[in-house]
Amino acid sequence: MCELLGMSANVPTDILFSFTGLMQRGGNTGPHKDGWGIAFYEGRGLRLFQDTKASVDSEVAQLVRRYPIKSEIVIGHIRQANIGRICLVNTHPFVRELWGSNWCFAHNGQLADFHPPKGFYWPVGDTDSEKAFCDMLNRVREAFSGPVEAERLIPVLTRACAEYRKSGVFNCLLSNGDWLFSFCSTKLVEITRKAPFGPARLKDADMSVDFQAVTTPDDVVTVLATEDLTHDETWTSHPSGGWSLWRHGECVVRGQIEEQ
Amino acid sequence: MCELLGMSANVPTDILFSFTGLMQRGGNTGPHKDGWGIAFYEGRGLRLFQDTKASVDSEVAQLVRRYPIKSEIVIGHIRQANIGRICLVNTHPFVRELWGSNWCFAHNGQLADFHPPKGFYWPVGDTDSEKAFCDMLNRVREAFSGPVEAERLIPVLTRACAEYRKSGVFNCLLSNGDWLFSFCSTKLVEITRKAPFGPARLKDADMSVDFQAVTTPDDVVTVLATEDLTHDETWTSHPSGGWSLWRHGECVVRGQIEEQ
Repeated sequence: MCELLGMSANVPTDILFSFTGLMQRGGNTGPHKDGWGIAFYEGRGLRLFQDTKASVDSEVAQLVRRYPIKSEIVIGHIRQANIGRICLVNTHPFVRELWGSNWCFAHNGQLADFHPPKGFYWPVGDTDSEKAFCDMLNRVREAFSGPVEAERLIPVLTRACAEYRKSGVFNCLLSNGDWLFSFCSTKLVEITRKAPFGPARLKDADMSVDFQAVTTPDDVVTVLATEDLTHDETWTSHPSGGWSLWRHGECVVRGQIEEQ
Repeated sequence: MCELLGMSANVPTDILFSFTGLMQRGGNTGPHKDGWGIAFYEGRGLRLFQDTKASVDSEVAQLVRRYPIKSEIVIGHIRQANIGRICLVNTHPFVRELWGSNWCFAHNGQLADFHPPKGFYWPVGDTDSEKAFCDMLNRVREAFSGPVEAERLIPVLTRACAEYRKSGVFNCLLSNGDWLFSFCSTKLVEITRKAPFGPARLKDADMSVDFQAVTTPDDVVTVLATEDLTHDETWTSHPSGGWSLWRHGECVVRGQIEEQ
């Protein structure tokens, strides 16, 4: 299995604190040593850093820590390989251009005997995750001929997630740089930080932050993760089948698909 | 204008030496201070590093220098902005997935009043370069329904290049990770390094290398650039309208389109 990290904020925000905690689970406090990746939206652009090494040993991860990038949407992932060997093409997040935007996706779980129909987007690697991402984008392309409001995409995305979940475990994060979509099949937690801000301490590393000192009263930042990253804060678990759409740090709309 | 850097090798090779020279032209020995990018193929995967800062001042460039990556195909670019503001989405190289491969492209030149028909691939940014890349891939998709030998792509690619050249200056590098294609409209030089290897000294930085000491007798490495990067070596200029296809460091086929 793997772990996911997502962020939606209303101001460019540095994910360093959460990233530091997550990276420890990549071979130190967690077993997810088969590569990691993190994608930062910068305007319409996307900066993607990936490595096939355990994140705790990764020089690229050190760079990302030394060079904090501020972003309004971030998708990160640490991998414990199941389907697909350990190599760059099997490392999340995955990216494709659709309608002139960079769409980015990461998956936690695994899908058994998963063979979606071939469409416009083809996987480059061997993972069930990238297959699902390509299939999701192929469905979106089939449903609409050009850019549409995120709200109109929800039925297409949730129907796809519901189907994938029948093949196994499918927790995912998806973004096009404007919004962040999440789906929980088994495990996903969230926390929204806004004024009044308090302190927090990482569970996986000896690091604390007083958000009061590094934010303004108007900041709103939501972090999504597979498991709580901090002490001193209350993370909310998503229900199985729960989906949510985030923009500028706030949940725009959320819902839950019927149980199988 | 901008400068291009390309490499094709028959063994994973470190481009650090050439990269070091090119980076100096990004704000130091050259005026190309509006961002830079370099893409390294790693198997079927692609590592892309980009920055909107002048390469001489770029922390990401320092990382790439500290962390030499070996690759069989590399495409690099330093930018002096003409069309399109300075931001990540306007920074070369550009990447798209086609038929399950990462296609990567960089352009030197500028196309005036360039409006190719809209197709499957859309530009994310505002540059004429990304428009041309998307149009090129759209033409390839229209011409073939799935992966074909590079040799069969040549007529489609060279016809596109011939048309683009009519709108201005179009020197480019294109790869899908298997082969490297180049087109010269005004400026492109090449050098192939193979046994017996000699020493070389950068023109833009105080750095020399004795290739004899860092290679094996079987290594073949070709470097393409906008202008000679070294002293003590003879670089060959491509003719206007000259195109070439490279694999494993060797030129597989080359030709020249008729003059306008």
